[in-house]
Amino acid sequence: MGKFSFDKLVIFGVGLIGGSLARALREREGVAAGGTIVGVGRSLASVERARVLGVVDEAAALDDDAALARALMGADLVLVAAPVAQTEPLLRRIAPFLGEAAIVTDAGSTKSDVVAAARAALGARVGQFVPGHPIAGRESSGVDAALPDLYVGRNVILCPLPENRAADVARIEALWHATGALVSTMDAARHDRVLASVSHLPHLLSFALVEQILGAPDAALKFSFAAGGFRDFTRIAASSPEMWRDVCLANREALVGELDAYTAVLQRLRAAILAGDGAALEAVFARSREARTEWQERGAKMAPARPRGDLAPE
Amino acid sequence: MGKFSFDKLVIFGVGLIGGSLARALREREGVAAGGTIVGVGRSLASVERARVLGVVDEAAALDDDAALARALMGADLVLVAAPVAQTEPLLRRIAPFLGEAAIVTDAGSTKSDVVAAARAALGARVGQFVPGHPIAGRESSGVDAALPDLYVGRNVILCPLPENRAADVARIEALWHATGALVSTMDAARHDRVLASVSHLPHLLSFALVEQILGAPDAALKFSFAAGGFRDFTRIAASSPEMWRDVCLANREALVGELDAYTAVLQRLRAAILAGDGAALEAVFARSREARTEWQERGAKMAPARPRGDLAPE
Repeated sequence: MGKFSFDKLVIFGVGLIGGSLARALREREGVAAGGTIVGVGRSLASVERARVLGVVDEAAALDDDAALARALMGADLVLVAAPVAQTEPLLRRIAPFLGEAAIVTDAGSTKSDVVAAARAALGARVGQFVPGHPIAGRESSGVDAALPDLYVGRNVILCPLPENRAADVARIEALWHATGALVSTMDAARHDRVLASVSHLPHLLSFALVEQILGAPDAALKFSFAAGGFRDFTRIAASSPEMWRDVCLANREALVGELDAYTAVLQRLRAAILAGDGAALEAVFARSREARTEWQERGAKMAPARPRGDLAPE
Repeated sequence: MGKFSFDKLVIFGVGLIGGSLARALREREGVAAGGTIVGVGRSLASVERARVLGVVDEAAALDDDAALARALMGADLVLVAAPVAQTEPLLRRIAPFLGEAAIVTDAGSTKSDVVAAARAALGARVGQFVPGHPIAGRESSGVDAALPDLYVGRNVILCPLPENRAADVARIEALWHATGALVSTMDAARHDRVLASVSHLPHLLSFALVEQILGAPDAALKFSFAAGGFRDFTRIAASSPEMWRDVCLANREALVGELDAYTAVLQRLRAAILAGDGAALEAVFARSREARTEWQERGAKMAPARPRGDLAPE
């Protein structure tokens, strides 16, 4: 497999996700050849930091028409790496300056809403947009947290549209392969159901436990005796409120479906507890333990060991 | 504060919890003076391992009357460190050989049921029993996992009975202080409510998430895209099914109360999601993040850094 080559990659939002893609292409040994990387930020100051760090070659402010036109001129790749709720206004802003040869992709945690936003913003040109989601992150955010190997061994899901050219999808696949990621393809609705189950729901459940304790009259006492189980269970309750608000709303249908299925399991366990049905409880707990242990062992084989906390923007 | 001294400590169940108490008294610099430590196990083989490791001085099998009588002769301290469901049969077995000067305590994760078991087994002598719960553990279990500093900076809750002599409660407090633990006192019902909230409920919720995914037609796909958030949230779903079955049943009333309060929070969040009420969601998530972050920072100040996974027998 030859090097991945590009002329000009423009990244909208050079934080952890966008910055790590840039660093991967630049710093991973022999994966990508040359090309200019331009960062575009809401303010010039935010993206200048990325330029000073050497993560991008050039910086432009989103509200500067001339700078934006210059940034997108001759671009063959565009990554939108911003909160999902900003996808539509961003694509509307980009559209007038977008060349016909450019392929646009994104890194949003939800996909059905992003597809709808792309259709609304790009209209007949939506075929230039290949929706994507790198399932990786860290607890820390911003360009200073970006890492060249953030995506090594991580999953990236692409959700190609019927309008996409196969060659364009293959090119976005190659882009992510260059970062060391494993690339899968599925439709947006399935992506959203899968992520609702293994990412969005656990975040909601974790926030909800802390919220419940906060509402108790003896909250302080409870917190003071919380230990390791609570710590692990609620680690993701320290995630960004704004991001998770947007994810919950963007993926509301799938998330509520998973939440209802989960609540049904809780009611089944509640009934077993009240009936003193130890065998039923033990069967569920044993199955869960076995599945969780297998999952952990499979993951340890597939992906390299990681520093703690790669969880924020799943 | 002088050294904690004892003549003979008999530990029923020399696993992680009992073994770590023995090692703390023996190996922590200058905290405890002399005394014999006897381990009693279901089988001689299980407790012989503890003797070979030097964790206990003598080993006895529970089903050997003569050995049990010898073990308890002259004992001033007895620790029951077995699954809570075994408390009553164990105390019944111990009672005939128990001297009047001996103080018995335990390490069970639930306390109302342990108190009831002690009353049933010890009758008029229940005043000799001081209920306790060291909130510490590790993912690995058994005497080989025992550590002399397992309890350093950890909470131990005592739930004294009206029948206890104050001097006996003070002595069990001193025993745990010698291990480096922080000792608190509350009644059994409050203990059970607090632990139901911050330990038992999160375990149930974590098991339930894995169970829900297992029941989905696309379970394998979902597991294959689970990442860091799922990993942390479900770490406790790898805990002992038998132990958590017993805990759920032993503490059913408090646990179901917490579960119902939690389900109410979930329903509130569900309504906010369906109503598209981003402000309500963000307010909950922001409150939770703030409380979780504060909890983490307070804990970092109080307790020393720990290897991962101190969660099993909360």
